[in-house]
Amino acid sequence: MSKKNFSGVLVPALTPFDADLSPDKSAFIDHCRWLLDEGADGLAIFGTTGEANSLTLEERMELLEAVIESGISAELLMPGTGTCAIGDSVRLTKHAVNLGCKGCLMLPPFYYKGVSDDGLFAAFSEIIQQVGSNSLKIYLYHIPPVAQVPFSLELIGRLISQYPDTVVGLKDSSGDWSNTEAVIAEYPDFETFAGSEVFLLDTLRAGGAGCITATGNINPAGIRHVFEMWQSDRADELQNRITEIRKVIQNFTMIPALKNMIADFTGQSDWALVRPPLTRLAADQTKQLMADLKAIRFSLQTREEELLA
Amino acid sequence: MSKKNFSGVLVPALTPFDADLSPDKSAFIDHCRWLLDEGADGLAIFGTTGEANSLTLEERMELLEAVIESGISAELLMPGTGTCAIGDSVRLTKHAVNLGCKGCLMLPPFYYKGVSDDGLFAAFSEIIQQVGSNSLKIYLYHIPPVAQVPFSLELIGRLISQYPDTVVGLKDSSGDWSNTEAVIAEYPDFETFAGSEVFLLDTLRAGGAGCITATGNINPAGIRHVFEMWQSDRADELQNRITEIRKVIQNFTMIPALKNMIADFTGQSDWALVRPPLTRLAADQTKQLMADLKAIRFSLQTREEELLA
Repeated sequence: MSKKNFSGVLVPALTPFDADLSPDKSAFIDHCRWLLDEGADGLAIFGTTGEANSLTLEERMELLEAVIESGISAELLMPGTGTCAIGDSVRLTKHAVNLGCKGCLMLPPFYYKGVSDDGLFAAFSEIIQQVGSNSLKIYLYHIPPVAQVPFSLELIGRLISQYPDTVVGLKDSSGDWSNTEAVIAEYPDFETFAGSEVFLLDTLRAGGAGCITATGNINPAGIRHVFEMWQSDRADELQNRITEIRKVIQNFTMIPALKNMIADFTGQSDWALVRPPLTRLAADQTKQLMADLKAIRFSLQTREEELLA
Repeated sequence: MSKKNFSGVLVPALTPFDADLSPDKSAFIDHCRWLLDEGADGLAIFGTTGEANSLTLEERMELLEAVIESGISAELLMPGTGTCAIGDSVRLTKHAVNLGCKGCLMLPPFYYKGVSDDGLFAAFSEIIQQVGSNSLKIYLYHIPPVAQVPFSLELIGRLISQYPDTVVGLKDSSGDWSNTEAVIAEYPDFETFAGSEVFLLDTLRAGGAGCITATGNINPAGIRHVFEMWQSDRADELQNRITEIRKVIQNFTMIPALKNMIADFTGQSDWALVRPPLTRLAADQTKQLMADLKAIRFSLQTREEELLA
């Protein structure tokens, strides 16, 4: 297999807001740096978890510039740049490529539903041609529960065949392991990432690249540990632990739950803010989440290694 | 009932493209003018039919300015201004209001699915407050088959109660007459438009405002005739005829089918172009469409009045 552009554990970083709901650049940079310090192999900023579609294009571009200016290498960044309109996707993608981002995670145009593979292929072709850069590396963002517009196995194959140096990977947030497995089996040189750490070990054993997972925002070290140890005899035990943590959190609405945990961890209450149409966790939900995490002895304050020692 | 801001037959105008897929302003203006000459009561430009979510914000704003500069009154315009991001919706809405548009047709933020009424209410509140204009008149765009984010009856009620002078109407593109009927019954002073002329007569008899319908792009006079004659004893006959025409067209993919018909009518072949992810009708589909229309004696060249005389 050829050398991978990205692999391991990438985190779709949360986007913190100020009290007036504008992006808090400084808190965002701090969070990005913490994730990398904890072992994240890259940051898939501006994804679903990052509320990117609730940001304007200008807000996204300013945040990306701020992150890079802060000293975080663009080589570690895989920003989301797929929108409903080809023109907007081209603009965001050019901007990211020009800043040196080593990949872009692209949603399909997601307004129209039931569109054909021909139409989606044409959209990606148009974007790739208009961006017109050999540096562009696209990761297809397959998230049918939200975008409602899937990448079929056949469409993935057509895109790889036509643009082998550009369409290099996929994030599978379908939640359907059989789909992830099929993509890896069909396209073994493609960089396939599971959309949840629940499937990390299965993904690595099947030959996939890693995972890009929302809960990486609160458990980057634990998830990274599975990636490091996946060929060891502790792999299943470590996987079971990160799965246990994930399953507690996904009983709650994911984005506000994660933001609540970061607010609690950093002591910065604004971290709990989300942009409409999302809403904060209700007080009783927050209480329940914290109790459930305590019950499984998970805390951002405590290194998992200590607990598992 | 208080005087309506809009009523009758509004057309969600198609957006023509040049060969390079940039918007063809001149063809757009010609089409808008033709629709009004044929009797359209207003133009709901930049809707689903207008491929608005495949346009950038700048493209939409330039087109709107061009239409108004061409001499078409902003009083006749109800542009679509709802996007995924509050900031983008505010920008488009302010622009439309400042140009004098008498209404805005607003999609809910449509990226996240399964969001709460509280979250949608907060999004609309934020937009209304940030636009901050007494001239703003919002028509809620209920199109669950595409946006996948519905306006519940309860949410509509909350928005009307909180913003009675701003949230003044709704377009119901659910395709579910029982929903349209319920909205009209629950909120009789609200301007409720059916999203298809199939329900025009039912809507008017129930006390609704009219319809905003894709097929208005090719049959504006016929549909307008039903609106004029709805209290006459010919109403059902006229309704049956526009329903017959609609049903032939909706056997095909609506937007490319309509664009093909306009291309055929105007002799401008570029009118058949759509932006990806949509695709043109295949040649055999176009042939079938034209044959089916001929079979029911429908042609844009022939006044329906002559056929029905």
